[in-house]
Amino acid sequence: MRPPHGLRHHRSIMSDTSFEHLSPEQFRAAGYALIDWLVDYRARVAELPVKSPLAPGDVRAQLPPAAPEQGTDFKAILEDVERIIVPGLMHWQSPNFFGYFPANASPPSILGDLLSSGLGVQGMLWLTSPACTELESHVLDWLVDALGLPQRFKTTTAGGGVIQDSASSATLCALLAARERIADYTVRQQGVPPGLVAYCSEETHSSLDKAVSIAGIGRAQLRKIATDERLAMRVDALAAAIAADRAAGLTPFFVCATIGTTSSLAIDPVREIAALCQAEGLWLHVDGAMAGSATLCPEYRHLNDGMEGVDSYCFNPHKWLLTNFDCDCFFVADREPLIRALTVLPEYLRNDATAGGEAIDYRDWQIPLGRRFRALKLWFVLRSYGLEALRSFIRQHLALAEEFAQWVTEDSRFELVAPRSLNLICFRLKGSDQENQRLLKRLNDSGRLFMSHTVIGGRYALRFCIGQTYTTREHVVEAWRLITAL
Amino acid sequence: MRPPHGLRHHRSIMSDTSFEHLSPEQFRAAGYALIDWLVDYRARVAELPVKSPLAPGDVRAQLPPAAPEQGTDFKAILEDVERIIVPGLMHWQSPNFFGYFPANASPPSILGDLLSSGLGVQGMLWLTSPACTELESHVLDWLVDALGLPQRFKTTTAGGGVIQDSASSATLCALLAARERIADYTVRQQGVPPGLVAYCSEETHSSLDKAVSIAGIGRAQLRKIATDERLAMRVDALAAAIAADRAAGLTPFFVCATIGTTSSLAIDPVREIAALCQAEGLWLHVDGAMAGSATLCPEYRHLNDGMEGVDSYCFNPHKWLLTNFDCDCFFVADREPLIRALTVLPEYLRNDATAGGEAIDYRDWQIPLGRRFRALKLWFVLRSYGLEALRSFIRQHLALAEEFAQWVTEDSRFELVAPRSLNLICFRLKGSDQENQRLLKRLNDSGRLFMSHTVIGGRYALRFCIGQTYTTREHVVEAWRLITAL
Repeated sequence: MRPPHGLRHHRSIMSDTSFEHLSPEQFRAAGYALIDWLVDYRARVAELPVKSPLAPGDVRAQLPPAAPEQGTDFKAILEDVERIIVPGLMHWQSPNFFGYFPANASPPSILGDLLSSGLGVQGMLWLTSPACTELESHVLDWLVDALGLPQRFKTTTAGGGVIQDSASSATLCALLAARERIADYTVRQQGVPPGLVAYCSEETHSSLDKAVSIAGIGRAQLRKIATDERLAMRVDALAAAIAADRAAGLTPFFVCATIGTTSSLAIDPVREIAALCQAEGLWLHVDGAMAGSATLCPEYRHLNDGMEGVDSYCFNPHKWLLTNFDCDCFFVADREPLIRALTVLPEYLRNDATAGGEAIDYRDWQIPLGRRFRALKLWFVLRSYGLEALRSFIRQHLALAEEFAQWVTEDSRFELVAPRSLNLICFRLKGSDQENQRLLKRLNDSGRLFMSHTVIGGRYALRFCIGQTYTTREHVVEAWRLITAL
Repeated sequence: MRPPHGLRHHRSIMSDTSFEHLSPEQFRAAGYALIDWLVDYRARVAELPVKSPLAPGDVRAQLPPAAPEQGTDFKAILEDVERIIVPGLMHWQSPNFFGYFPANASPPSILGDLLSSGLGVQGMLWLTSPACTELESHVLDWLVDALGLPQRFKTTTAGGGVIQDSASSATLCALLAARERIADYTVRQQGVPPGLVAYCSEETHSSLDKAVSIAGIGRAQLRKIATDERLAMRVDALAAAIAADRAAGLTPFFVCATIGTTSSLAIDPVREIAALCQAEGLWLHVDGAMAGSATLCPEYRHLNDGMEGVDSYCFNPHKWLLTNFDCDCFFVADREPLIRALTVLPEYLRNDATAGGEAIDYRDWQIPLGRRFRALKLWFVLRSYGLEALRSFIRQHLALAEEFAQWVTEDSRFELVAPRSLNLICFRLKGSDQENQRLLKRLNDSGRLFMSHTVIGGRYALRFCIGQTYTTREHVVEAWRLITAL
């Protein structure tokens, strides 16, 4: 029993400052053990059920009710990872994962992230780790060239790139910069003026609904423009909506177009939308979250058509470019409205480099203040693979997707619900939605693969997205065998 | 030279899908090499100049102008880390780092983060990795008990905890939940109603200025309440400001109080502020970013006084609890307004667990959609050290800070600018602000320590914050010797 709380006790506690960190040799041994564990995990992950069979509460039921008073050795912790955590995972790194979008986590990327964790630097200001800022600027400039993006997205111009945690955050930042620009930089002080209107398509990612809500604009001021038969935004409908809002005395200010929608990888006509936005003075943000990686290949560079008229763009190497989460690359053609929207400069962050304007302070390009050294993992990936291998990685999945779509077309029991776009196939059993739901449930409950679903044109569709780090032809063949057998 | 682009060429590119990942043995060898490098880095980091001597552009000048076409072996990459990156770092993990706030990165935490990177799961929904959600809920519930926080912050109640990337994001989420609550849940649809007013003190972190700007409320609607001689918010001034705003027809809705301000670690009177907020129907958020870790020790539990009347609270284990960035623990007493403010549910994320309401989907508790498995590093820290050692870790720094403050007081050349609060000492040379600025510049340029500054009561002050992972008495003694010598 503890003695009652009091000054004497207080003093004796205060003097209790003895404890031990892991020694260098313990750290090394634990690090080796975890690396071994991860190598082993990758070797066996294809055999694990992709979707966890556990029910809500099953993981918590195995954890003790209170945090331990005494420390535990690393071996015991790793045993608990195996026993408690692994059965409760969806194995996104399984080559049999075909759900949502992929979440690539390659060895060089994992190690780049480990270095970031180990260095433990804060990159909020240039001053607080120059290399953290400059490597980020530099690698994002590399990508501008590697993806054939406009030069004005480079940090060496009035624009520039920054790593965000996600496309959701990038979209929010774009919206805030646009809000700032339209209101002559008074929004920060006075709040959102009434009547601002934003536009996207019916197929745009839900993060835009969230962003207009967060930014205080309101979802009622987000117009969802109709799409054509390819599920791409109709530019005539967009023009009509803008005209109608202007006639109603409202202020159109922002459009979000998508290169590869989440539901079906539909491609909005960026060139035409950009021309309209420039004529109307609207900010155009383009979300290329997954599909953007394909533009590394010259034969898919056409996806970037019209990008020179765009105000901001993002894509996620953490989806399909072998770089693990979180790594969204966000580019702006003009950094000024972004920085104006997000800057604050309290006394304790003032410094000569910032005052001199010679350096980028990335805290002014994002929502949070603090930031990890995320450029390391992207740099490690680009260095370790090189662009040629990365292109081959993308092409491998595109070739497999073409083949898979062919199988679907040739099997009379199935039909494509939308044309194959890049590495995504949306298809269904010719039958009721319920039959398709049942098929998906049986497939996912088997643990042998994971797929997700969507609704296109009012019809339930199975989404099969090929993009995981270790997915090869044999996994796709086996998946199709399973789909047709069930 | 490449042949001109054309269909033939196109086809030959398309068939080029050969490339290689690191083999398991290459991954293992590279992982071991990086673990060795990190162990070595920790052993020598005290000898490296804490602040990088490089000028803007120096890092970029050493990087090639384009991303490599061919891959490189890991050894070469690690050599470039040593040659290009290390000289461009501020060494936040140096035991001689006394600037800003600490950014603890302990071995168990680094390894927990490595496991998160290696598993590469997305925790946006319970379904997309049950263990990712449940371990997070569970470990945050552990902390409620370990820190003596109110039970209503537990996920087993109507409230609950979630890991955010930073206190900035936590504060923004609190503000959005408050905005939603005051407007009867219509803000998401209609945008921010006019007249909302938020309150903080003159010493509150700048992230609140940023948050009111992002949320569309506007900085002109953020009242900065005067502080008393201890730099704590004056409750009478807060009450007067609320009354004045009500009299002007405005709608007070949100107060941010701080337990340990960034500038001087001042403690706002939470109990009195909470009573006022409850009487007035205002949301009270409390930011305990660094100081919150001290409440792990019973003798500092009094810092949480009044917390049972608070709507939301956050503190950062990534500052002073041996868990590396990003790890902010954010607690709410009622999760409903938070979720209502941030939820969106497109078809492709619908699933039975979410529909049944049995599971937490943390995407609805944060700005982004995607999320890492951040609970692992916090779990590893709590398991590896145990609460007793963590308390000793905190007490060690508090005892050193008490000693350091004593040295300042006893040296006639120096004076404290504010009373020592916890592990932060704000002091100055008795002399002009310019003399103090020169002293700080000489200290930081020496590379032998890093401190930052602030302005308190109009006077320039040096901030000495003791909290790094490996800082011990010898480093503090040596720092004082250097300060007094220069």
